[in-house]
Amino acid sequence: MKSFASDNYSGIHPEIFKAIQRANNLHEISYGDDTFTAEANQLFEKEFGKVTVLYTFNGTGANVTCLKCCTLPFQAVVCSEFAHILADECGAPTQSIGCSLLPLKTADGKLTPEMIKPLLGRIGNVHNTQPRVISISQSTELGTVYSIAELKALCDFAHANGMYVHLDGARISNAVAALGVSMKAATVDCGVDIMSFGGTKNGLMMGEAVLIFNEELKTNAPYFHKQIAQLFSKNRFIATQFTALLTDNLWLRMATHANQMAQLLAKEVNGLPGVKINRSVDANAVFVIIPEKVIQPLRAQYPFYEWDAETHEQRWMCSFDTTEEEVIGFVKALRELL
Amino acid sequence: MKSFASDNYSGIHPEIFKAIQRANNLHEISYGDDTFTAEANQLFEKEFGKVTVLYTFNGTGANVTCLKCCTLPFQAVVCSEFAHILADECGAPTQSIGCSLLPLKTADGKLTPEMIKPLLGRIGNVHNTQPRVISISQSTELGTVYSIAELKALCDFAHANGMYVHLDGARISNAVAALGVSMKAATVDCGVDIMSFGGTKNGLMMGEAVLIFNEELKTNAPYFHKQIAQLFSKNRFIATQFTALLTDNLWLRMATHANQMAQLLAKEVNGLPGVKINRSVDANAVFVIIPEKVIQPLRAQYPFYEWDAETHEQRWMCSFDTTEEEVIGFVKALRELL
Amino acid sequence: MKSFASDNYSGIHPEIFKAIQRANNLHEISYGDDTFTAEANQLFEKEFGKVTVLYTFNGTGANVTCLKCCTLPFQAVVCSEFAHILADECGAPTQSIGCSLLPLKTADGKLTPEMIKPLLGRIGNVHNTQPRVISISQSTELGTVYSIAELKALCDFAHANGMYVHLDGARISNAVAALGVSMKAATVDCGVDIMSFGGTKNGLMMGEAVLIFNEELKTNAPYFHKQIAQLFSKNRFIATQFTALLTDNLWLRMATHANQMAQLLAKEVNGLPGVKINRSVDANAVFVIIPEKVIQPLRAQYPFYEWDAETHEQRWMCSFDTTEEEVIGFVKALRELL
Amino acid sequence: MKSFASDNYSGIHPEIFKAIQRANNLHEISYGDDTFTAEANQLFEKEFGKVTVLYTFNGTGANVTCLKCCTLPFQAVVCSEFAHILADECGAPTQSIGCSLLPLKTADGKLTPEMIKPLLGRIGNVHNTQPRVISISQSTELGTVYSIAELKALCDFAHANGMYVHLDGARISNAVAALGVSMKAATVDCGVDIMSFGGTKNGLMMGEAVLIFNEELKTNAPYFHKQIAQLFSKNRFIATQFTALLTDNLWLRMATHANQMAQLLAKEVNGLPGVKINRSVDANAVFVIIPEKVIQPLRAQYPFYEWDAETHEQRWMCSFDTTEEEVIGFVKALRELL
Repeated sequence: MKSFASDNYSGIHPEIFKAIQRANNLHEISYGDDTFTAEANQLFEKEFGKVTVLYTFNGTGANVTCLKCCTLPFQAVVCSEFAHILADECGAPTQSIGCSLLPLKTADGKLTPEMIKPLLGRIGNVHNTQPRVISISQSTELGTVYSIAELKALCDFAHANGMYVHLDGARISNAVAALGVSMKAATVDCGVDIMSFGGTKNGLMMGEAVLIFNEELKTNAPYFHKQIAQLFSKNRFIATQFTALLTDNLWLRMATHANQMAQLLAKEVNGLPGVKINRSVDANAVFVIIPEKVIQPLRAQYPFYEWDAETHEQRWMCSFDTTEEEVIGFVKALRELL
Repeated sequence: MKSFASDNYSGIHPEIFKAIQRANNLHEISYGDDTFTAEANQLFEKEFGKVTVLYTFNGTGANVTCLKCCTLPFQAVVCSEFAHILADECGAPTQSIGCSLLPLKTADGKLTPEMIKPLLGRIGNVHNTQPRVISISQSTELGTVYSIAELKALCDFAHANGMYVHLDGARISNAVAALGVSMKAATVDCGVDIMSFGGTKNGLMMGEAVLIFNEELKTNAPYFHKQIAQLFSKNRFIATQFTALLTDNLWLRMATHANQMAQLLAKEVNGLPGVKINRSVDANAVFVIIPEKVIQPLRAQYPFYEWDAETHEQRWMCSFDTTEEEVIGFVKALRELL
Repeated sequence: MKSFASDNYSGIHPEIFKAIQRANNLHEISYGDDTFTAEANQLFEKEFGKVTVLYTFNGTGANVTCLKCCTLPFQAVVCSEFAHILADECGAPTQSIGCSLLPLKTADGKLTPEMIKPLLGRIGNVHNTQPRVISISQSTELGTVYSIAELKALCDFAHANGMYVHLDGARISNAVAALGVSMKAATVDCGVDIMSFGGTKNGLMMGEAVLIFNEELKTNAPYFHKQIAQLFSKNRFIATQFTALLTDNLWLRMATHANQMAQLLAKEVNGLPGVKINRSVDANAVFVIIPEKVIQPLRAQYPFYEWDAETHEQRWMCSFDTTEEEVIGFVKALRELL
Repeated sequence: MKSFASDNYSGIHPEIFKAIQRANNLHEISYGDDTFTAEANQLFEKEFGKVTVLYTFNGTGANVTCLKCCTLPFQAVVCSEFAHILADECGAPTQSIGCSLLPLKTADGKLTPEMIKPLLGRIGNVHNTQPRVISISQSTELGTVYSIAELKALCDFAHANGMYVHLDGARISNAVAALGVSMKAATVDCGVDIMSFGGTKNGLMMGEAVLIFNEELKTNAPYFHKQIAQLFSKNRFIATQFTALLTDNLWLRMATHANQMAQLLAKEVNGLPGVKINRSVDANAVFVIIPEKVIQPLRAQYPFYEWDAETHEQRWMCSFDTTEEEVIGFVKALRELL
């Protein structure tokens, strides 16, 4: 059964699957010293320029590794109240690093320098945890996308105040597809210091990559990566998936498709009685308020999650494998229930 | 190229690979609430009896999850000086839990109650970390295997003194194949409280399982598992591999073969001039001292690791995919170099 | 120079000082196994009933010890946005335990069950940190005091939902003096599970006590206490101060006086032009908005801290050694500046 | 009753007590921004040259602060198997920092570069924790004292291999008194990077000082100090004790006396039947094997601790307040029991 529940419900894209098959050769050196990993590293360099790459199993692993490279226990990570690192990782960054998270209210999931400014008063006061990282999600947990100008403003602000910028890119491909620029232009060129590059939600069997651009953050990274149990002995099986993802712009093709399906879905339900598109549809998510009575019967046909139990806002995620037929079928089911 | 370097150099067994292919269906519920995970759980119950199963990406992740379920920060884990958790995980258990490791000297990698007794004097003294877990590896990092009687003696001793037993079973299949009993008889029936069940070194693309037998340790386990970033969104792709592993005794077939290759290797090199089998060959590892001058040229043909740089003891690991031809070819190469 | 800056600016009350002198005898057993500690323990039992007492050096040490006894790393501590554990301890509880803090908005520094209810939805969801402790300050950081009914309601709510109640009693004496009941009636009888009993801000040279009422929390407490470096070798020198504090109600005499000075101060400035008492004066703190121009010159005569840089709300703390003359002198200085 | 149990059984030296009395003035700024702290800081500068001073409550607090300034969680602290940080702090450094301790065997409690060399092979291997600090105790837990040449050799070795040297100076005064050089010559001039300067065991009511010589370690120190709950609000009461300690060489007078008492004690018991001085008496401790039958009756008159339950080695500590009469009386009691 297909669903609009999450882009992590989907399976493995055929080109990714072939890559795994290809890497299932005889013996390879373990822990990333193999040729498949070297190949993937080169493709990352082609896409981003000079970068240190560490492969991780999942997004939490990538985010924790990133934040650990940036933060000491008395320091704090500024994030949105909706940030995955705050809301969905069972306290992993805090527990693993000992640092604090400083969540900020934001209507659209995006941070701005103005929001962060009041925290600058903490700097130098030993009674307060010290803001050290601004962590943003791109696209955000609310399906919105920072513009290039917004990213640059945040990075400039961070650097001017002794902070790093971490980008949680579980859905970076969807964001970049939406922005219509290169990966590099949307990340390191804006000033991002370190990022989690998502694979699992964009057609991989599994795998994320920690990408370190800032030289200061590279030295200790391999030890943190190992210590939080994210160094994979048979790393070729993750690296090879990224090779496929970065070949012939597969990442872009998949993300563009998922975004288009979200646009189609939003267009088709727009104006239906009692249906309200509740947030800007920038990437592959549609946040929508629908009448309470249709939620259960619609969900019985196509699973999805309720975002807010009070307002009955629903989150509909499109995936690389969502088809036009499924979107149309979903909308048809909704129409009939309304 | 094939090697005798490590059982994690190998690839994916064809039956495992097919299982991944089978699970690459359309959409499945994430985070282990899917049907593939349920299927694997049932096979674990069939093999071990009542058990809580948590799937992890790698062995360090499994070990840390296990130890976290057993230990508070002022407590300590008793282990051998060769234990993977001490020697090869970059301090992951210590960092993640805050606990201490208490390593003990042991000639063959195996602990005994006698060795642990002197630590009992710490109990109740607030100035000392408190022994809480005995962690053993089966088979050990030295290729030896605890007998059933030895396991029972350790578990009884642990329980009589308020301690748990954790079994690091990265190579449990090799050990059980060597013991010639059932999985259950070799673990939970001996009194093991919690274990890491290895897959990666026995033909899986990746994956280990935390198996919790002791009811006291089950309550908090899912949170620890999530918090150390080992909960996989597309968990079906790990679970399905265990389904294949536990079907038609694939685990036993593979482990038995690897063990037989180690026996063959040991037999063939035994008695060669300057060659000394240095430890009991109980499972799939051969520890051997060879003349210094042949090490590099032999390694150039078949990679392997030096275990001890001073004594020039080498570790030769056999894998599920090691063939008789490779063993014979390796021995032939050695003979020619001698 | 005297001040209205903080009750930790003050020195040692003469009766406390005499107690230190008395304990400066020849040799005593270290780490709390001495007769002075036994004597203080008895007085605590007399005041609170059955209780386990651990002496700490400071309030942060006491709070961290308390929270560590209640919390595992995946659990969370619910607190007010103004809580000392959140705002003034440089992240100590989070770093030391690995747990998260869940701050709640509150106008008067006091939590209510209604505020906490929305967090109950997290329980059982492995992606969320799990609420485990409600931590309250009595009196609060805003100088307000929970009523007995409010305390009972919070404790009942906590226990009904599987949570503990921690009371940060850095100023518990001021609160109890304000409530006009016994120490026991205001704490353990309301259902408080564990508390930090403050001494430093009420006439001690130094020292706080962790008081554990809930049997479940007692077992591991001595190890946590030692491990966070709060076990004092010459413990008699802290214990003896508490003996003096708990003798002839010295704690009550001092706290009552400090509270009276705050009442006097509030009464005297009330109605002055441009002066606004901004919060309920329940204990020994007066929060007041005064014209910006008088702040600096007034502070030059009597130091105090600005609470809110935007609203120019000031915090004036009275201490056990604040005199009526000082209050009158301070008000006179303010009048002249207005 | 006087004892030979520990130098932390003793009370407060009269000159120290007077200093506390002097600091019990009206109000002072809290958290170390007061004049008493400034005065003590100046005396430390006079003694050691340029130094950052952080005052702590106890030795564990000082050691943890020091090590936290030097170490990330994947790094390790090399120490002797007898080190206080390993044996007597309930795992505090490990828990607080997440780092590992690497204990080394040593007959006399002293480390040498030769012992540490085998650990250099770990450097750069992500599977191993990385040696980052050499932590030594001066005088050692066995009552021995490193010579200046030994200290210099260790510091040179550490720096040549990218490591820092931490000195646990709970009894540094006794060591320096034994060496007959200046404090500075025995510490920073040898290359020590950071140290815990002991007060509690040398006549203070309480208090240790973290002394940071290496500029690299100064930046984060105040935050670590605060976060592990060692920043004292009424810091003047600790600082003033150090002012007394550093005035007119009180530290040296007390330590010299304690050392002399140990020498006297060793001389008097030397040669008694069945009595064997078991270690070099360099400072204020005498380690001695005595007949088992006299242990309990002797201890009933003068408490002391058994160091080794198997060999019946006893530890007799002399303190600043140990008198010649007590030593003679103790020896007399022993003679009579023999």
